[in-house]
Amino acid sequence: MKFATVALATSMALGASALVTATAEAKTIETRWADVEVETVAEGLVRPWGIAFLPEGRLLVTEMEGRLRIIEADGSLGEPIRGVPEVTVRNQGGLLDVALAPDFETSNRIYLTWSEAETSGSNVTSTAVAHAVLGDGELHNLTTIFSQYPKVEGGRHYGGRMVFSHDGRYLYVGLGDRGHQMKESQDLDSHTGTLIRLYANGEVPQDNPFVGQEGALPEIWSYGHRNIQGIDIQPSTGLMWAVEHGPQGGDELNLPEPGKNYGWPLITHGEAYGGGQMSETISFNKDGMELPVWHWTPSIAVSGMTFYDGDAFPEWQGNVLAAGLRGQVIARLEIDGNRVIHEERMAVDYRIREIRQGPDGYLYLLTDERDNAKVLRLRPAQ
Amino acid sequence: MKFATVALATSMALGASALVTATAEAKTIETRWADVEVETVAEGLVRPWGIAFLPEGRLLVTEMEGRLRIIEADGSLGEPIRGVPEVTVRNQGGLLDVALAPDFETSNRIYLTWSEAETSGSNVTSTAVAHAVLGDGELHNLTTIFSQYPKVEGGRHYGGRMVFSHDGRYLYVGLGDRGHQMKESQDLDSHTGTLIRLYANGEVPQDNPFVGQEGALPEIWSYGHRNIQGIDIQPSTGLMWAVEHGPQGGDELNLPEPGKNYGWPLITHGEAYGGGQMSETISFNKDGMELPVWHWTPSIAVSGMTFYDGDAFPEWQGNVLAAGLRGQVIARLEIDGNRVIHEERMAVDYRIREIRQGPDGYLYLLTDERDNAKVLRLRPAQ
Ligand SMILES: [Ca+2]
Ligand SMILES: [Ca+2]
Repeated sequence: MKFATVALATSMALGASALVTATAEAKTIETRWADVEVETVAEGLVRPWGIAFLPEGRLLVTEMEGRLRIIEADGSLGEPIRGVPEVTVRNQGGLLDVALAPDFETSNRIYLTWSEAETSGSNVTSTAVAHAVLGDGELHNLTTIFSQYPKVEGGRHYGGRMVFSHDGRYLYVGLGDRGHQMKESQDLDSHTGTLIRLYANGEVPQDNPFVGQEGALPEIWSYGHRNIQGIDIQPSTGLMWAVEHGPQGGDELNLPEPGKNYGWPLITHGEAYGGGQMSETISFNKDGMELPVWHWTPSIAVSGMTFYDGDAFPEWQGNVLAAGLRGQVIARLEIDGNRVIHEERMAVDYRIREIRQGPDGYLYLLTDERDNAKVLRLRPAQ
Repeated sequence: MKFATVALATSMALGASALVTATAEAKTIETRWADVEVETVAEGLVRPWGIAFLPEGRLLVTEMEGRLRIIEADGSLGEPIRGVPEVTVRNQGGLLDVALAPDFETSNRIYLTWSEAETSGSNVTSTAVAHAVLGDGELHNLTTIFSQYPKVEGGRHYGGRMVFSHDGRYLYVGLGDRGHQMKESQDLDSHTGTLIRLYANGEVPQDNPFVGQEGALPEIWSYGHRNIQGIDIQPSTGLMWAVEHGPQGGDELNLPEPGKNYGWPLITHGEAYGGGQMSETISFNKDGMELPVWHWTPSIAVSGMTFYDGDAFPEWQGNVLAAGLRGQVIARLEIDGNRVIHEERMAVDYRIREIRQGPDGYLYLLTDERDNAKVLRLRPAQ
């Protein structure tokens, strides 16, 4: 169960047909199991970052410059929704992810992440999480439930990707090392370089791994992460997996377990920008740190990821689909237990910011452009 | 410890220099960690299949048509050694692998595998294992220690690759399904589609997994294999790993554990020749069967494999290097525990039959040609 109940119910009511209209790109990608048609669902977006599936084929999309829009089932863009948080738009900062509350059907509640400033207009920022009620063209009752500590200068590595656990109780949020705070990714007294787990109301689950440990922040689920850009729940196990950017090489797929250390910046398969191994990194295992399940070296600049469990591509069920910015590919990973046993890459020829499975079983992608960015859809070729 | 003691001692006495002379091919392969120079050690071979490292930089190479030759350290080919077993040369049958006994330094004993006929000249064959003492230009005391049961018509899928355990006590031999005996790969009353474990003298270890089980052959270590073409011991663990050909896709890397079923022909990632999934296969897990650690789909027609633990390519230590015939590549796999966490492919542009690490830490390859096949060597570019 990957989506809010309402979306699934809608999907089932409509059968296997697509919920959203689209026009075909002049592109079919041949793959091992299917010929994949790339369709355009919507265009005219500016740096979209997150996507969520509303009932009746509507989409909710964030744009980094601070806009949240509804895309109608016919692909038309709605006006920006009023009442979003004030975001600091700088470099990688801005409005980031959007997710529906597990009880969206009754609550109309959504969740947002963004780069939150210390004071209005300040460049001292960190990643924050809020929920709000989606009304007619505006958000109500915006409530910030988490702010990454500390806020720092610089506009890099916000992380920001969210996912709810299957039972809807827990919200996982992937964060980043904020670019120049690498060493703090190994410390537990900051949220720098961590992945956190909250209850949906923002409270801290008392069985989080560092609750009660002096000097450790209780929201932390796992640490030693560089910049988490994709996160999803594995359908067969309920486990949360995540992808993160490496330092020019060493993009990672991890299976973050509670309390564990994923090594950044002490171990990585990447290298320093400009070439050469990073002075403080090694490329192999080290006691007390977890190696990734998979790494992409050279980097594809991994962005979003989704597990696939739809019917449109039955042979992909259980696979991870991870998107690449620089790589302009979708990497399809076959999973057995905690290991990848095969990778296939599909050349999409767009920088892809996010990939999510829709309630119709098709795959929805956001392209990463400042001008006329698109929502694309992958479906089996006719 | 990957080689007979004498070879390692020789290597250490000579320091890090190559034991064998060679001329550079006009080819350097750029890889993640090293620029790799491809050198020609020897040429003029016909369908070479197996290689072993003698003291003082000499090589022992099999040719499928029934010749065993010494290659001198200057690359010159010796005359065929007399006294090899009579082989049935047909399709994939012939003289196959060669290995030095763990006590070669004192015994001069070698091991051979080949396609053994029921009666001289018969097309009813199976894979056999023998040892013999390597004398001056001839073999003495040739003793067959194993014959795959049953012998059948047809010349495909002999397996034949051998490796000794680190302590020298056990000999592992990878076999095949003989091409038209697929279902028997699931049965324990034949050696079809199995990997076997013997003592060096050919006796059956009494702790083999099926010893004492009625109707099961005691030599079997693991089963459900299609056609094992490469086998090696992992330096850090002493565990034996193996690669096998899939049916047009689904080439596999496995970590064969005692008594376990590797699924052929019931599960595979390959497909029927001519396209389409094999009628009796599925591409995912099934109770009681092991998925591969890694699969290559589309197939590279995987042949030999070696773990790397040399000093010439320090960043490759612990990696698997697997060769491809059709793929004409070397696949470098980074290993963490029982999983592959990264693959890099190097285009060698030859069909490669075997890859082994030499005692000098360089990699030795056999090309697969009927005319002027070569021993190639990979070393760091100057
Ligand atoms: Ca890591
Ligand atoms: Ca198998």
